[in-house]
Amino acid sequence: MKSFWRNKKVLITSGPTREHLDPVRFLSNASSGRMGAALAAEALARGARVTVVTGPAITPLPKRAQVVHVNGAQEMLDACLKALPGTTAVIGAAAVADFRPAVPSARKIKKQGAKPLVLKLVPTPDVIGTLSKRKKKGRPLTAGFALETDDLINNAREKMEKKHLDLIVANGPDALFSDKTRAMVLAKGGGAAFYSGSKKGLARMIFDFLGRSL
Amino acid sequence: MKSFWRNKKVLITSGPTREHLDPVRFLSNASSGRMGAALAAEALARGARVTVVTGPAITPLPKRAQVVHVNGAQEMLDACLKALPGTTAVIGAAAVADFRPAVPSARKIKKQGAKPLVLKLVPTPDVIGTLSKRKKKGRPLTAGFALETDDLINNAREKMEKKHLDLIVANGPDALFSDKTRAMVLAKGGGAAFYSGSKKGLARMIFDFLGRSL
Repeated sequence: MKSFWRNKKVLITSGPTREHLDPVRFLSNASSGRMGAALAAEALARGARVTVVTGPAITPLPKRAQVVHVNGAQEMLDACLKALPGTTAVIGAAAVADFRPAVPSARKIKKQGAKPLVLKLVPTPDVIGTLSKRKKKGRPLTAGFALETDDLINNAREKMEKKHLDLIVANGPDALFSDKTRAMVLAKGGGAAFYSGSKKGLARMIFDFLGRSL
Repeated sequence: MKSFWRNKKVLITSGPTREHLDPVRFLSNASSGRMGAALAAEALARGARVTVVTGPAITPLPKRAQVVHVNGAQEMLDACLKALPGTTAVIGAAAVADFRPAVPSARKIKKQGAKPLVLKLVPTPDVIGTLSKRKKKGRPLTAGFALETDDLINNAREKMEKKHLDLIVANGPDALFSDKTRAMVLAKGGGAAFYSGSKKGLARMIFDFLGRSL
Protein backbone atom coordinates (compact mmCIF):
# COMPACT_ATOMS: atom_id res chain seq x y z
CA MET A 1 0.00 0.00 0.00
CA LYS A 2 2.71 2.40 1.09
CA SER A 3 4.73 1.77 -2.03
CA PHE A 4 1.81 2.81 -4.25
CA TRP A 5 1.45 6.26 -2.73
CA ARG A 6 5.19 6.92 -2.49
CA ASN A 7 5.91 10.20 -4.32
CA LYS A 8 2.38 10.34 -5.69
CA LYS A 9 0.77 13.77 -5.38
CA VAL A 10 -2.35 14.11 -3.25
CA LEU A 11 -4.42 17.31 -3.20
CA ILE A 12 -6.68 17.91 -0.20
CA THR A 13 -9.12 20.75 0.46
CA SER A 14 -9.79 21.49 4.11
CA GLY A 15 -11.57 23.74 6.58
CA PRO A 16 -14.54 26.06 6.11
CA THR A 17 -14.71 28.79 3.52
CA ARG A 18 -16.01 32.29 4.15
CA GLU A 19 -18.17 34.41 1.85
CA HIS A 20 -18.23 38.04 2.89
CA LEU A 21 -21.36 40.23 2.96
CA ASP A 22 -19.19 43.24 3.81
CA PRO A 23 -15.68 43.73 5.25
CA VAL A 24 -16.77 42.36 8.65
CA ARG A 25 -19.57 39.84 8.20
CA PHE A 26 -19.45 36.52 6.39
CA LEU A 27 -21.33 33.30 5.79
CA SER A 28 -19.47 30.25 7.00
CA ASN A 29 -19.76 27.02 8.97
CA ALA A 30 -18.08 25.43 11.98
CA SER A 31 -15.62 23.17 10.14
CA SER A 32 -12.46 22.83 12.23
CA GLY A 33 -10.21 21.44 9.49
CA ARG A 34 -9.57 18.28 11.55
CA MET A 35 -10.61 15.90 8.76
CA GLY A 36 -8.32 17.64 6.25
CA ALA A 37 -5.43 17.54 8.71
CA ALA A 38 -6.02 13.80 9.38
CA LEU A 39 -6.10 13.08 5.62
CA ALA A 40 -2.89 15.05 5.06
CA ALA A 41 -1.14 13.15 7.87
CA GLU A 42 -2.31 9.78 6.48
CA ALA A 43 -1.18 10.62 2.93
CA LEU A 44 2.24 11.72 4.21
CA ALA A 45 2.54 8.52 6.29
CA ARG A 46 1.94 6.56 3.07
CA GLY A 47 4.77 8.40 1.36
CA ALA A 48 2.73 10.82 -0.78
CA ARG A 49 3.51 14.45 -1.51
CA VAL A 50 0.65 16.50 -0.12
CA THR A 51 -0.83 19.88 -1.01
CA VAL A 52 -3.59 21.23 1.24
CA VAL A 53 -5.76 24.12 0.06
CA THR A 54 -7.40 25.34 3.25
CA GLY A 55 -9.92 27.94 4.37
CA PRO A 56 -9.51 29.66 7.77
CA ALA A 57 -9.39 26.62 10.09
CA ILE A 58 -8.13 26.26 13.65
CA THR A 59 -6.46 22.84 13.31
CA PRO A 60 -2.71 22.89 12.56
CA LEU A 61 -1.68 21.05 9.39
CA PRO A 62 1.30 18.66 9.19
CA LYS A 63 4.57 20.53 8.64
CA ARG A 64 5.52 18.46 5.60
CA ALA A 65 2.36 19.39 3.71
CA GLN A 66 2.45 22.25 1.23
CA VAL A 67 -0.29 24.60 2.39
CA VAL A 68 -2.22 27.20 0.36
CA HIS A 69 -4.46 29.52 2.42
CA VAL A 70 -7.70 30.77 0.87
CA ASN A 71 -10.88 32.47 2.02
CA GLY A 72 -13.82 31.92 -0.38
CA ALA A 73 -14.96 29.08 -2.66
CA GLN A 74 -13.81 30.71 -5.93
CA GLU A 75 -10.37 31.29 -4.46
CA MET A 76 -10.26 27.66 -3.28
CA LEU A 77 -11.17 26.40 -6.75
CA ASP A 78 -8.54 28.63 -8.41
CA ALA A 79 -5.84 27.37 -6.02
CA CYS A 80 -6.85 23.73 -6.64
CA LEU A 81 -6.81 24.14 -10.44
CA LYS A 82 -3.32 25.57 -10.13
CA ALA A 83 -2.19 22.63 -7.97
CA LEU A 84 -3.97 19.96 -10.08
CA PRO A 85 -1.38 18.97 -12.72
CA GLY A 86 0.32 15.70 -11.80
CA THR A 87 -2.14 14.88 -9.02
CA THR A 88 -3.12 11.23 -8.42
CA ALA A 89 -5.97 11.83 -5.99
CA VAL A 90 -8.03 14.83 -4.93
CA ILE A 91 -9.96 14.71 -1.67
CA GLY A 92 -12.46 17.48 -1.03
CA ALA A 93 -12.70 17.61 2.75
CA ALA A 94 -13.41 21.35 2.95
CA ALA A 95 -16.87 22.42 4.07
CA VAL A 96 -17.30 24.88 1.22
CA ALA A 97 -19.88 27.58 1.94
CA ASP A 98 -22.07 26.98 -1.10
CA PHE A 99 -23.87 30.31 -1.21
CA ARG A 100 -22.35 33.76 -1.34
CA PRO A 101 -23.91 37.24 -1.31
CA ALA A 102 -24.60 38.25 -4.93
CA VAL A 103 -23.29 41.77 -4.28
CA PRO A 104 -20.89 42.08 -1.33
CA SER A 105 -20.75 45.57 0.17
CA ALA A 106 -17.40 47.39 0.31
CA ARG A 107 -18.54 49.12 3.52
CA LYS A 108 -19.95 47.67 6.73
CA ILE A 109 -23.72 47.36 6.32
CA LYS A 110 -25.33 49.46 9.06
CA LYS A 111 -28.37 48.40 11.06
CA GLN A 112 -31.30 50.62 10.11
CA GLY A 113 -33.37 50.30 13.27
CA ALA A 114 -35.66 47.29 13.10
CA LYS A 115 -35.69 47.19 9.29
CA PRO A 116 -35.07 43.77 7.75
CA LEU A 117 -32.33 43.30 5.22
CA VAL A 118 -32.93 41.23 2.12
CA LEU A 119 -29.85 39.43 1.00
CA LYS A 120 -29.62 37.78 -2.39
CA LEU A 121 -27.36 34.75 -2.29
CA VAL A 122 -25.98 32.97 -5.35
CA PRO A 123 -24.34 29.53 -5.48
CA THR A 124 -20.56 29.41 -5.21
CA PRO A 125 -18.59 27.27 -7.67
CA ASP A 126 -18.63 23.55 -6.92
CA VAL A 127 -14.96 22.93 -6.06
CA ILE A 128 -14.74 19.12 -6.05
CA GLY A 129 -17.36 18.78 -8.83
CA THR A 130 -15.35 21.05 -11.12
CA LEU A 131 -12.11 19.21 -10.36
CA SER A 132 -13.66 15.78 -11.04
CA LYS A 133 -14.82 16.96 -14.47
CA ARG A 134 -11.19 17.69 -15.35
CA LYS A 135 -10.45 13.96 -15.26
CA LYS A 136 -8.41 12.48 -18.05
CA LYS A 137 -8.45 8.67 -18.40
CA GLY A 138 -9.86 8.23 -14.93
CA ARG A 139 -7.20 10.34 -13.20
CA PRO A 140 -7.08 11.96 -10.73
CA LEU A 141 -9.28 9.96 -8.44
CA THR A 142 -11.72 12.27 -6.69
CA ALA A 143 -13.28 11.84 -3.29
CA GLY A 144 -15.81 14.16 -1.68
CA PHE A 145 -17.73 14.60 1.53
CA ALA A 146 -21.49 15.01 1.89
CA LEU A 147 -22.71 16.70 4.99
CA GLU A 148 -26.42 15.99 5.16
CA THR A 149 -29.06 16.48 7.82
CA ASP A 150 -31.56 14.04 6.32
CA ASP A 151 -31.74 11.07 3.94
CA LEU A 152 -27.97 10.83 4.29
CA ILE A 153 -27.10 7.86 2.08
CA ASN A 154 -29.44 8.64 -0.83
CA ASN A 155 -28.37 12.29 -0.93
CA ALA A 156 -24.71 11.23 -0.79
CA ARG A 157 -25.02 8.63 -3.55
CA GLU A 158 -26.82 11.14 -5.76
CA LYS A 159 -24.07 13.68 -5.12
CA MET A 160 -21.36 11.11 -5.96
CA GLU A 161 -22.97 10.40 -9.33
CA LYS A 162 -23.77 13.98 -10.21
CA LYS A 163 -20.24 15.15 -9.40
CA HIS A 164 -18.51 12.14 -11.04
CA LEU A 165 -16.72 11.19 -7.82
CA ASP A 166 -14.98 7.87 -7.19
CA LEU A 167 -15.75 7.96 -3.49
CA ILE A 168 -18.03 9.86 -1.17
CA VAL A 169 -18.04 10.07 2.60
CA ALA A 170 -21.47 10.85 4.04
CA ASN A 171 -21.84 12.26 7.53
CA GLY A 172 -24.11 14.35 9.69
CA PRO A 173 -23.44 17.81 11.14
CA ASP A 174 -22.23 16.33 14.47
CA ALA A 175 -18.89 15.64 12.69
CA LEU A 176 -18.22 19.39 12.49
CA PHE A 177 -15.91 20.60 15.24
CA SER A 178 -15.46 17.15 16.72
CA ASP A 179 -12.62 14.68 16.65
CA LYS A 180 -15.03 11.77 16.52
CA THR A 181 -17.10 10.99 13.51
CA ARG A 182 -19.66 8.52 12.23
CA ALA A 183 -19.73 8.17 8.50
CA MET A 184 -20.66 6.00 5.52
CA VAL A 185 -17.95 5.56 2.90
CA LEU A 186 -19.50 4.85 -0.51
CA ALA A 187 -17.44 3.88 -3.57
CA LYS A 188 -18.45 4.32 -7.21
CA GLY A 189 -18.23 0.56 -7.86
CA GLY A 190 -20.84 -0.06 -5.16
CA GLY A 191 -18.61 -0.80 -2.17
CA ALA A 192 -19.72 0.73 1.10
CA ALA A 193 -18.62 0.69 4.72
CA PHE A 194 -19.84 2.22 7.92
CA TYR A 195 -17.25 3.92 10.09
CA SER A 196 -17.37 5.17 13.66
CA GLY A 197 -14.29 6.47 15.46
CA SER A 198 -11.55 9.05 15.15
CA LYS A 199 -11.01 11.18 12.04
CA LYS A 200 -7.56 9.60 11.84
CA GLY A 201 -9.15 6.16 11.45
CA LEU A 202 -11.57 7.49 8.85
CA ALA A 203 -8.63 8.95 6.90
CA ARG A 204 -7.03 5.48 6.89
CA MET A 205 -10.23 3.91 5.57
CA ILE A 206 -10.52 6.52 2.80
CA PHE A 207 -6.98 5.83 1.57
CA ASP A 208 -7.61 2.06 1.73
CA PHE A 209 -10.73 2.51 -0.42
CA LEU A 210 -8.92 4.79 -2.88
CA GLY A 211 -6.06 2.28 -3.11
CA ARG A 212 -8.54 -0.43 -4.14
CA SER A 213 -9.86 1.81 -6.94
CA LEU A 214 -6.44 2.01 -8.56
CA MET B 1 -6.88 52.03 41.41
CA LYS B 2 -6.61 48.40 42.41
CA SER B 3 -8.46 48.98 45.67
CA PHE B 4 -11.48 50.36 43.82
CA TRP B 5 -12.04 47.25 41.69
CA ARG B 6 -11.36 44.76 44.50
CA ASN B 7 -14.36 42.41 44.76
CA LYS B 8 -16.37 44.54 42.34
CA LYS B 9 -18.18 42.54 39.69
CA VAL B 10 -17.26 43.12 36.05
CA LEU B 11 -19.28 41.61 33.20
CA ILE B 12 -17.58 41.25 29.82
CA THR B 13 -19.00 40.00 26.51
CA SER B 14 -16.47 38.50 24.13
CA GLY B 15 -15.92 36.77 20.81
CA PRO B 16 -18.14 36.59 17.74
CA THR B 17 -21.73 35.39 17.75
CA ARG B 18 -23.24 33.07 15.19
CA GLU B 19 -26.69 33.26 13.64
CA HIS B 20 -27.67 30.04 11.90
CA LEU B 21 -29.43 29.84 8.51
CA ASP B 22 -29.74 26.09 8.92
CA PRO B 23 -28.00 23.43 11.08
CA VAL B 24 -24.72 23.91 9.17
CA ARG B 25 -24.45 27.48 7.89
CA PHE B 26 -24.26 30.66 9.91
CA LEU B 27 -23.56 34.37 9.69
CA SER B 28 -20.59 35.45 11.79
CA ASN B 29 -17.39 37.47 11.80
CA ALA B 30 -13.71 36.85 12.48
CA SER B 31 -13.57 38.05 16.10
CA SER B 32 -10.95 36.01 17.95
CA GLY B 33 -12.03 36.92 21.49
CA ARG B 34 -8.58 38.40 22.24
CA MET B 35 -9.97 41.76 23.38
CA GLY B 36 -12.42 40.10 25.76
CA ALA B 37 -9.67 37.87 27.17
CA ALA B 38 -7.38 40.90 27.68
CA LEU B 39 -10.17 42.80 29.46
CA ALA B 40 -10.91 39.81 31.71
CA ALA B 41 -7.22 39.47 32.63
CA GLU B 42 -6.96 43.21 33.39
CA ALA B 43 -10.09 43.19 35.58
CA LEU B 44 -8.81 40.16 37.50
CA ALA B 45 -5.41 41.82 37.99
CA ARG B 46 -7.24 44.80 39.52
CA GLY B 47 -8.96 42.49 41.99
CA ALA B 48 -12.42 42.33 40.37
CA ARG B 49 -14.67 39.30 40.08
CA VAL B 50 -15.19 38.64 36.39
CA THR B 51 -17.95 37.01 34.37
CA VAL B 52 -17.37 36.57 30.63
CA VAL B 53 -20.28 35.77 28.33
CA THR B 54 -18.60 34.54 25.19
CA GLY B 55 -19.52 33.37 21.70
CA PRO B 56 -17.45 30.64 19.99
CA ALA B 57 -13.97 32.19 20.13
CA ILE B 58 -10.53 30.61 19.78
CA THR B 59 -8.72 32.60 22.51
CA PRO B 60 -8.52 30.94 25.94
CA LEU B 61 -10.03 32.96 28.80
CA PRO B 62 -8.34 33.43 32.20
CA LYS B 63 -9.01 30.47 34.51
CA ARG B 64 -10.29 32.68 37.33
CA ALA B 65 -13.05 34.19 35.18
CA GLN B 66 -16.52 32.72 35.33
CA VAL B 67 -17.37 31.84 31.72
CA VAL B 68 -20.78 31.44 30.09
CA HIS B 69 -20.73 30.04 26.54
CA VAL B 70 -23.38 31.20 24.08
CA ASN B 71 -23.97 31.07 20.33
CA GLY B 72 -26.36 33.79 19.10
CA ALA B 73 -27.10 37.40 20.11
CA GLN B 74 -30.38 36.64 21.90
CA GLU B 75 -28.67 33.94 23.96
CA MET B 76 -25.85 36.38 24.79
CA LEU B 77 -28.33 39.02 25.95
CA ASP B 78 -30.23 36.50 28.09
CA ALA B 79 -27.01 35.32 29.75
CA CYS B 80 -25.94 38.92 30.44
CA LEU B 81 -29.29 39.87 31.96
CA LYS B 82 -28.98 36.86 34.25
CA ALA B 83 -25.45 37.90 35.29
CA LEU B 84 -26.28 41.62 35.61
CA PRO B 85 -27.40 42.02 39.26
CA GLY B 86 -24.61 43.44 41.41
CA THR B 87 -22.44 44.37 38.43
CA THR B 88 -20.32 47.55 38.62
CA ALA B 89 -19.23 47.68 34.99
CA VAL B 90 -20.29 45.98 31.78
CA ILE B 91 -17.94 45.94 28.81
CA GLY B 92 -19.35 44.79 25.49
CA ALA B 93 -16.30 43.52 23.62
CA ALA B 94 -18.17 40.85 21.66
CA ALA B 95 -18.54 41.35 17.93
CA VAL B 96 -22.25 40.57 17.93
CA ALA B 97 -23.59 39.49 14.54
CA ASP B 98 -26.32 42.11 14.22
CA PHE B 99 -28.48 40.43 11.62
CA ARG B 100 -29.98 36.94 11.75
CA PRO B 101 -32.05 34.97 9.24
CA ALA B 102 -35.74 35.75 9.85
CA VAL B 103 -36.68 32.09 9.47
CA PRO B 104 -33.81 29.62 10.09
CA SER B 105 -34.30 26.27 8.37
CA ALA B 106 -34.35 23.10 10.49
CA ARG B 107 -32.78 21.20 7.57
CA LYS B 108 -29.71 21.95 5.51
CA ILE B 109 -30.72 24.23 2.64
CA LYS B 110 -29.87 22.44 -0.60
CA LYS B 111 -28.32 24.10 -3.62
CA GLN B 112 -30.88 24.14 -6.45
CA GLY B 113 -28.54 24.35 -9.42
CA ALA B 114 -27.69 27.94 -10.23
CA LYS B 115 -30.83 29.34 -8.57
CA PRO B 116 -30.25 32.29 -6.24
CA LEU B 117 -31.51 32.15 -2.68
CA VAL B 118 -33.20 35.15 -1.15
CA LEU B 119 -32.53 35.43 2.53
CA LYS B 120 -34.49 37.79 4.74
CA LEU B 121 -32.39 39.02 7.63
CA VAL B 122 -33.74 40.79 10.70
CA PRO B 123 -31.76 42.74 13.32
CA THR B 124 -30.62 40.83 16.39
CA PRO B 125 -31.18 42.37 19.84
CA ASP B 126 -28.70 45.09 20.78
CA VAL B 127 -26.85 43.45 23.68
CA ILE B 128 -24.87 46.37 25.17
CA GLY B 129 -27.61 48.91 24.31
CA THR B 130 -30.22 46.85 26.17
CA LEU B 131 -27.93 46.44 29.19
CA SER B 132 -27.13 50.16 29.37
CA LYS B 133 -30.84 50.97 29.46
CA ARG B 134 -31.15 48.86 32.60
CA LYS B 135 -29.04 51.40 34.49
CA LYS B 136 -30.15 52.54 37.91
CA LYS B 137 -28.55 55.70 39.32
CA GLY B 138 -25.75 55.57 36.78
CA ARG B 139 -24.80 51.96 37.54
CA PRO B 140 -23.49 49.76 36.05
CA LEU B 141 -21.05 51.67 33.92
CA THR B 142 -21.30 50.49 30.34
CA ALA B 143 -18.58 50.45 27.71
CA GLY B 144 -18.95 49.34 24.12
CA PHE B 145 -16.92 48.84 20.98
CA ALA B 146 -17.67 50.29 17.56
CA LEU B 147 -16.19 48.50 14.61
CA GLU B 148 -16.51 50.85 11.68
CA THR B 149 -15.12 50.88 8.16
CA ASP B 150 -15.70 54.59 7.55
CA ASP B 151 -16.25 57.85 9.45
CA LEU B 152 -14.99 56.03 12.54
CA ILE B 153 -15.16 58.71 15.22
CA ASN B 154 -18.50 60.26 14.25
CA ASN B 155 -20.17 56.87 13.93
CA ALA B 156 -18.73 55.83 17.29
CA ARG B 157 -19.81 58.99 19.12
CA GLU B 158 -23.30 58.66 17.70
CA LYS B 159 -23.43 55.05 18.86
CA MET B 160 -22.25 56.02 22.36
CA GLU B 161 -25.08 58.54 22.70
CA LYS B 162 -27.78 56.39 21.17
CA LYS B 163 -26.89 53.42 23.38
CA HIS B 164 -26.37 55.49 26.57
CA LEU B 165 -22.82 54.24 27.00
CA ASP B 166 -20.23 55.78 29.33
CA LEU B 167 -17.37 54.83 27.06
CA ILE B 168 -16.87 53.67 23.52
CA VAL B 169 -13.83 52.22 21.82
CA ALA B 170 -13.77 52.84 18.07
CA ASN B 171 -11.65 50.72 15.79
CA GLY B 172 -11.42 49.45 12.23
CA PRO B 173 -11.76 45.88 10.97
CA ASP B 174 -7.99 45.30 11.09
CA ALA B 175 -8.40 44.79 14.87
CA LEU B 176 -10.28 41.54 14.22
CA PHE B 177 -8.09 38.48 14.57
CA SER B 178 -5.01 40.48 15.49
CA ASP B 179 -3.21 41.02 18.74
CA LYS B 180 -2.38 44.59 17.79
CA THR B 181 -4.98 47.28 17.61
CA ARG B 182 -5.37 50.97 16.87
CA ALA B 183 -8.33 52.58 18.53
CA MET B 184 -9.93 55.79 19.78
CA VAL B 185 -11.29 55.66 23.32
CA LEU B 186 -14.13 58.18 23.73
CA ALA B 187 -15.75 58.94 27.10
CA LYS B 188 -19.24 60.34 27.66
CA GLY B 189 -17.84 63.45 29.41
CA GLY B 190 -15.85 64.32 26.28
CA GLY B 191 -12.50 62.75 27.14
CA ALA B 192 -10.77 61.00 24.28
CA ALA B 193 -7.48 59.24 23.66
CA PHE B 194 -5.84 57.54 20.74
CA TYR B 195 -4.32 54.14 21.39
CA SER B 196 -1.97 52.00 19.32
CA GLY B 197 -0.44 48.80 20.66
CA SER B 198 -1.41 45.47 22.21
CA LYS B 199 -4.94 44.59 23.26
CA LYS B 200 -3.54 44.15 26.79
CA GLY B 201 -2.51 47.84 26.80
CA LEU B 202 -5.89 48.88 25.44
CA ALA B 203 -7.60 46.91 28.24
CA ARG B 204 -5.50 48.85 30.77
CA MET B 205 -6.53 52.17 29.21
CA ILE B 206 -10.21 51.20 29.25
CA PHE B 207 -10.12 50.39 32.98
CA ASP B 208 -8.23 53.63 33.68
CA PHE B 209 -10.94 55.58 31.84
CA LEU B 210 -13.75 53.71 33.61
CA GLY B 211 -12.06 54.34 36.98
CA ARG B 212 -12.10 58.07 36.28
CA SER B 213 -15.86 57.94 35.60
CA LEU B 214 -16.55 56.58 39.07
